[in-house]
Amino acid sequence: MAPPSPRVVVKVDLNKKPWQQNQPLHNRWHPEIPPVAEVKAGEFFRVEMIDAMGGVVKDNGSASDIKNADLTTSHHLSGPIKVVDEEGVAAKPGDLLAIEICNLGPLPGDEWGYTASFDRENGGGFLTDHFPCATKAIWYFEGIYAYSPQIPGVRFPGLTHPGIIGTAPSKELLRIWNERERQLEESGLKSLTLCEVVHQRPLANLPTSRGCLLGNIEEGTPEWERISKEAARTIPGRENGGNCDIKNLSRGSKIYLPVFVEGANLSTGDMHFSQGDGEISFCGAIEMSGFLELKCEIIRNGMQEYLTPMGPTPLHVNPIFEIGPVEPRFSEWLVFEGISVDESGKQHYLDTTVAYKRAVLNAIDYLSKFGYSKEQVYLLLSCCPCEGRISGIVDAPNAVATLAIPTAIFDQDIRPKTRKVPAGPRIVKKKPDVLKSTYDGKLPITKNPTSSSA
Amino acid sequence: MAPPSPRVVVKVDLNKKPWQQNQPLHNRWHPEIPPVAEVKAGEFFRVEMIDAMGGVVKDNGSASDIKNADLTTSHHLSGPIKVVDEEGVAAKPGDLLAIEICNLGPLPGDEWGYTASFDRENGGGFLTDHFPCATKAIWYFEGIYAYSPQIPGVRFPGLTHPGIIGTAPSKELLRIWNERERQLEESGLKSLTLCEVVHQRPLANLPTSRGCLLGNIEEGTPEWERISKEAARTIPGRENGGNCDIKNLSRGSKIYLPVFVEGANLSTGDMHFSQGDGEISFCGAIEMSGFLELKCEIIRNGMQEYLTPMGPTPLHVNPIFEIGPVEPRFSEWLVFEGISVDESGKQHYLDTTVAYKRAVLNAIDYLSKFGYSKEQVYLLLSCCPCEGRISGIVDAPNAVATLAIPTAIFDQDIRPKTRKVPAGPRIVKKKPDVLKSTYDGKLPITKNPTSSSA
Amino acid sequence: MAPPSPRVVVKVDLNKKPWQQNQPLHNRWHPEIPPVAEVKAGEFFRVEMIDAMGGVVKDNGSASDIKNADLTTSHHLSGPIKVVDEEGVAAKPGDLLAIEICNLGPLPGDEWGYTASFDRENGGGFLTDHFPCATKAIWYFEGIYAYSPQIPGVRFPGLTHPGIIGTAPSKELLRIWNERERQLEESGLKSLTLCEVVHQRPLANLPTSRGCLLGNIEEGTPEWERISKEAARTIPGRENGGNCDIKNLSRGSKIYLPVFVEGANLSTGDMHFSQGDGEISFCGAIEMSGFLELKCEIIRNGMQEYLTPMGPTPLHVNPIFEIGPVEPRFSEWLVFEGISVDESGKQHYLDTTVAYKRAVLNAIDYLSKFGYSKEQVYLLLSCCPCEGRISGIVDAPNAVATLAIPTAIFDQDIRPKTRKVPAGPRIVKKKPDVLKSTYDGKLPITKNPTSSSA
Amino acid sequence: MAPPSPRVVVKVDLNKKPWQQNQPLHNRWHPEIPPVAEVKAGEFFRVEMIDAMGGVVKDNGSASDIKNADLTTSHHLSGPIKVVDEEGVAAKPGDLLAIEICNLGPLPGDEWGYTASFDRENGGGFLTDHFPCATKAIWYFEGIYAYSPQIPGVRFPGLTHPGIIGTAPSKELLRIWNERERQLEESGLKSLTLCEVVHQRPLANLPTSRGCLLGNIEEGTPEWERISKEAARTIPGRENGGNCDIKNLSRGSKIYLPVFVEGANLSTGDMHFSQGDGEISFCGAIEMSGFLELKCEIIRNGMQEYLTPMGPTPLHVNPIFEIGPVEPRFSEWLVFEGISVDESGKQHYLDTTVAYKRAVLNAIDYLSKFGYSKEQVYLLLSCCPCEGRISGIVDAPNAVATLAIPTAIFDQDIRPKTRKVPAGPRIVKKKPDVLKSTYDGKLPITKNPTSSSA
Repeated sequence: MAPPSPRVVVKVDLNKKPWQQNQPLHNRWHPEIPPVAEVKAGEFFRVEMIDAMGGVVKDNGSASDIKNADLTTSHHLSGPIKVVDEEGVAAKPGDLLAIEICNLGPLPGDEWGYTASFDRENGGGFLTDHFPCATKAIWYFEGIYAYSPQIPGVRFPGLTHPGIIGTAPSKELLRIWNERERQLEESGLKSLTLCEVVHQRPLANLPTSRGCLLGNIEEGTPEWERISKEAARTIPGRENGGNCDIKNLSRGSKIYLPVFVEGANLSTGDMHFSQGDGEISFCGAIEMSGFLELKCEIIRNGMQEYLTPMGPTPLHVNPIFEIGPVEPRFSEWLVFEGISVDESGKQHYLDTTVAYKRAVLNAIDYLSKFGYSKEQVYLLLSCCPCEGRISGIVDAPNAVATLAIPTAIFDQDIRPKTRKVPAGPRIVKKKPDVLKSTYDGKLPITKNPTSSSA
Repeated sequence: MAPPSPRVVVKVDLNKKPWQQNQPLHNRWHPEIPPVAEVKAGEFFRVEMIDAMGGVVKDNGSASDIKNADLTTSHHLSGPIKVVDEEGVAAKPGDLLAIEICNLGPLPGDEWGYTASFDRENGGGFLTDHFPCATKAIWYFEGIYAYSPQIPGVRFPGLTHPGIIGTAPSKELLRIWNERERQLEESGLKSLTLCEVVHQRPLANLPTSRGCLLGNIEEGTPEWERISKEAARTIPGRENGGNCDIKNLSRGSKIYLPVFVEGANLSTGDMHFSQGDGEISFCGAIEMSGFLELKCEIIRNGMQEYLTPMGPTPLHVNPIFEIGPVEPRFSEWLVFEGISVDESGKQHYLDTTVAYKRAVLNAIDYLSKFGYSKEQVYLLLSCCPCEGRISGIVDAPNAVATLAIPTAIFDQDIRPKTRKVPAGPRIVKKKPDVLKSTYDGKLPITKNPTSSSA
Repeated sequence: MAPPSPRVVVKVDLNKKPWQQNQPLHNRWHPEIPPVAEVKAGEFFRVEMIDAMGGVVKDNGSASDIKNADLTTSHHLSGPIKVVDEEGVAAKPGDLLAIEICNLGPLPGDEWGYTASFDRENGGGFLTDHFPCATKAIWYFEGIYAYSPQIPGVRFPGLTHPGIIGTAPSKELLRIWNERERQLEESGLKSLTLCEVVHQRPLANLPTSRGCLLGNIEEGTPEWERISKEAARTIPGRENGGNCDIKNLSRGSKIYLPVFVEGANLSTGDMHFSQGDGEISFCGAIEMSGFLELKCEIIRNGMQEYLTPMGPTPLHVNPIFEIGPVEPRFSEWLVFEGISVDESGKQHYLDTTVAYKRAVLNAIDYLSKFGYSKEQVYLLLSCCPCEGRISGIVDAPNAVATLAIPTAIFDQDIRPKTRKVPAGPRIVKKKPDVLKSTYDGKLPITKNPTSSSA
Repeated sequence: MAPPSPRVVVKVDLNKKPWQQNQPLHNRWHPEIPPVAEVKAGEFFRVEMIDAMGGVVKDNGSASDIKNADLTTSHHLSGPIKVVDEEGVAAKPGDLLAIEICNLGPLPGDEWGYTASFDRENGGGFLTDHFPCATKAIWYFEGIYAYSPQIPGVRFPGLTHPGIIGTAPSKELLRIWNERERQLEESGLKSLTLCEVVHQRPLANLPTSRGCLLGNIEEGTPEWERISKEAARTIPGRENGGNCDIKNLSRGSKIYLPVFVEGANLSTGDMHFSQGDGEISFCGAIEMSGFLELKCEIIRNGMQEYLTPMGPTPLHVNPIFEIGPVEPRFSEWLVFEGISVDESGKQHYLDTTVAYKRAVLNAIDYLSKFGYSKEQVYLLLSCCPCEGRISGIVDAPNAVATLAIPTAIFDQDIRPKTRKVPAGPRIVKKKPDVLKSTYDGKLPITKNPTSSSA
């Protein structure tokens, strides 16, 4: 009889530092990072992963770990995993690698996660101009459910998924990435709108040796020195998949990744217990350690057959995904709309980013009327199973973006209604300063001068 | 016993021109357009609407009507409808108007619609730089299903909804709109990216007397002359709702609109049999005549209670929506991803509009491998029940947008797979020039030099 | 261009009696009832139907019409419709007729329905031993929603469907029906359990000339006299489909019916705005007039190819159904269980009927604790979208049946919970005697001696 | 910070026999079986369970283990678990115990299960008259998916659930059970129909010392001797919950069980990776070892408050269930119907058990036309996520039961369709004798003389 259990091809030890793991981790994309494991097409295998921040964020009420986090070490990926077909022949550039997610979850004994917003000086997030301080919420898992002492009154089933799944880039693709991102960094400031400058966030995250982990390539060797200067950061999603943050990539999903190097060199990490579309607070999903149980298939020549390059070279392609059949079933959604007019009243031209920012701000303001602080809602909308949609993209000058929130995650009815007793102050059911404890005591949560409702 | 049927408060005659209707229509937003009907809170009533283009698009295979369409006459709205409470007191500025969509559909005897892309010279669409020509597809309805002679091989249940539902703006809100949109038009070109200039689309759609319909205000009168110059166009969605194009606002949905004028002055129109998120080809939904069966409730002071202004004045608010419980149930979705790197390979900074454009282009290229022309897919993705998501908005420099397409709408399996017979030309199952007939014969469909795969 | 609207092949006039309709109706199954219309395979057509009881039940608060109803006239079917293929060749015995329900609904201007329980002396229902009296509730439709003055506090979207859709039986099949049902009637009493005898319901509904309508066959003619004595009643579902009462046969469903006579002779009727699984109170769905918009396909020899006879002759076959993709989406269900131990405590052997009866009684008792009278709940569970499941059928001696009720249909939270104030009488939110008015004044609702909680 | 992981309150060792476990198991219901663990209300805890048959069924292709299985040892339950409130006060008779299933699954390293039908001489199943022989299929789990070497061409996500969850009965309730089941056994044969006699299955499963496991009560002691003679078997579901086999009791479900003894004494077991409604082949779910992660709440006096006794004593009550929000999403179902006419053509009176039997037989015959043997389909319908519904229960003389099968579980299109090449033999895609190997070689699968299609 066939062995039913998945073969564990990458194992992690949560008591060890990222750089101490038996199968060394990596936090960069580069064709020369050698595989740490090999799997056959059709084989059922398991990969374990530490959390994106590599264990520096602790299960406590202080956000000081977030405030001082070193983003150059993110994310800590497991792999690369070399994929070969039934005959042992490796996946080849031009193939498509089809990966089925058969199962996933937190690592046993480590059933908790965190959602955070970075400080303005340290990466920021989508709404840094409104929420400039580091905050943190801890989530505990009760099976499929998550709840947070910092955000009481909500409990929801997670739509768990890997934030990052990707193949290694080829040398040529890596060169393209570095070039185009460097160009943005250099020329970017001129074309930025006011709204974006206020963000004061880095425009791109260029290669840096600092914090670099390259798997089996030993730090300090000449090889490490060279590669660490050219290896791409894992922050953005790109042609190889990577940090795509597609919240519905849960059990039963299938991911079709282009293969750029011999063996495909698949890496995964950044497990999310749950995430809202957009992952708005940046460290916005419920970040956790976890495992994936996978099956791979090689679609020979699939890249040429199915993916049309959309740029100067045949490498400008994008992965394809198939969403799985198992998702929480919500029947009621409250939907907030944003149009591409920013908070100063300025009109932007079909700018979906501005429109989505407004939709999120509208939702935050609305939910803050039900006893939550705005910081709480900001974190909540980063990690709960809310949907961000591009509703209208053609009706000049306004893009219309919408944010849909399942009402069932709240323990109160959050829909607008005619109140029996219209006058008098609203009863605050949640302590508005409940997130305060996640600060270091230096940054009072109530002083948020740029907040829209101030 | 209570009368069960809805009271018809606006009736249209499809044999008459828009300006000949008994209850005159309007195609502008202005506080002084007088109501044509009145309803009580709690009352169950019915509104009929002609199609957005006012009947100029015909049920035939030629796109000449689209090519020559006068967009200054869009959209043809029914209303305004004054809303009063059970005691007859009108809704007041500051209230919220809650509107439940109890039912909707095409008008009996007029069960067909159209999806079109405008010519580059005449409004264009989201992908005008790739698809510069006017095209048109006709859809016939078989109950909940739509099929098109121009796009064979697909048939899907419609998620029918009104593209436009809105309240009248106050004088002050109207002034704000006109000012901010004029500023964009004047200063806009400087800050536009190359990608947007290529569009050559109008930046904003400013007030114009041309094509203006103002309901009961007679054309040519001094009042008409004045109002037609200040009344806002209905193209973009704004603080009053309007053209929000939220594809899930179907049976059972509830819409919470701010009230800016006495009586609320609710208007509706632009019925869509079905629409994809984004309505990408601009005239992209399946446009049709139709009816709405509604119930209203007035939430007194709801605007102050629930909506936080997000701009210089208390009028900068946005509506809220509740999605209804009845939707087609799809179990499998194929998802295409786009990042904010444009077709030339240029990196943009967290630009969701660029990312969504890339996701759509990826989907078009992919589906064109299954026997469809790209023009067919462009129209199909405008109107079929596909979902456009903002997946990642924080991972600088790339925004990640995704487009999810239900696989069940196709009569073939569109998933990537290992082919038994890898070599040889693909069998084209659909005639690739089937949309040709919708052109005037002057614009051959195969000459599309800017198309990404050319 | 093709005509989009469905061709109306059977039209009804609600101001006329059943026997006065232009296209005469029928209320019996017989091969010799001549078709009143003909459709082609692939054609999109529309059939209108009066309600099952033929208009005798009125939109008022008295149940006297139900108490005195003549069940020999039920149901009033539209058709038969002869079906031919694209070449005009009729469907033949041995074929399968595939019917797609493209759309359906109430007839415009007649948007109301009724749910009723018959008197013990007049047909009764599933729980006649507990609820021996005739009751009636009127439902008004607001688009997809139904609400009832007699059962306040509930409102739900209908899963509208035809209760009856069937083909004409052959002479031989009709003979089999009459024989096996007559045998039951004759020999039945001996083998009946106590529980069933208490029902005092007719064991079978044998042919009778009384109340018989045979379409174009004129009453009083020798042909009518003969046929009326052998034509099968439409009460039970049988091999030809008929009164199958499958509540999910809504928009987008497909029905595969065996063809027993030349032309198939399709008949439809008994439209339900909504029904719970089991339709427990007998006249238990929300009965209404309505329309179906259909498309037919003939699968030649499909009966032999797909249906295996399961009885002494090849005619012992059963139809197949495909459920459509559009249904209300409920996320929370409360589930009541019943086992095959009856109310007297007696153990039955794997008897699902007893188990389901117990599940329904448990649900009635439970919901009666929330302010409803048991009669109200009995009618509610007959018509709301609740699901009746056979959960366990093998664990001797107990069959386990379950009844799942969507909690969203109630305007109060009906889940069990720890009460803050355990002592004291419960506050009755609904008037428990609200159904009283549906009686004739002779049968007080509170005297229900056999009720389980008495 | 709070400890996030569930506390393991019952641990099993799969390498030990059922009677060798550290926390001894039990396979009977009795008030005097002492608790093996205690949990507090609100506590998050984990229970591990061995499979229902106690490890005697092996992961191989022979059905000899099934053929010779000793059913007196089923099922092997973990517990009892005593439940106390936050103050340490035990649950009391008359309370309701609310149990939330936060998570569940197979035990790590033991990811496989089995589906089987018992021999006619050894328990049989729902269709023993058609399938008299023992058969077995092994299922391997790939995360959420199950596949079987014995039933190729199907793969489906499991809706995993505990088959058994129950509280201990009181002495009085136990007496009632034993009395009513003994009466059935004694008097039963007289009232049985032919169809049931053919089954030759035991009518009830009365107490027996044989195979009895009583937890901490040591075998051979006088206490054991006494209790083993009165303790109820765990085969049927009863007032305490028990073997209710509700297939939707998966992640996020809540179960409200009546409390009959001090501490409630909760027991669980019989984990199912997946089950079809009815679990028709008796050992019909995918049986496996597994774990539950639970939270309990005590609703004081909830039994009196929410459950109405429906029998001679206040103990005749039934549990209530709430279905969870996470389920596989299937969009297409093929539905088979059965009416209460048995395979001999005999008419039964509103007998849902006969109707469901016919629906199942119809489905088996239909699916056998797609290359499966009937034995394969019998097992498949026992364990795949199919739904058994009571569609009509009032239309005398026919009950209508339906069986709905999600079409997505098959790797071929199983819907009826017009074939291009109608003539000629069908191509058999699945080896029809693939189950043969599960027999002992003595019972050839093709000899099934009572099968309906013979």
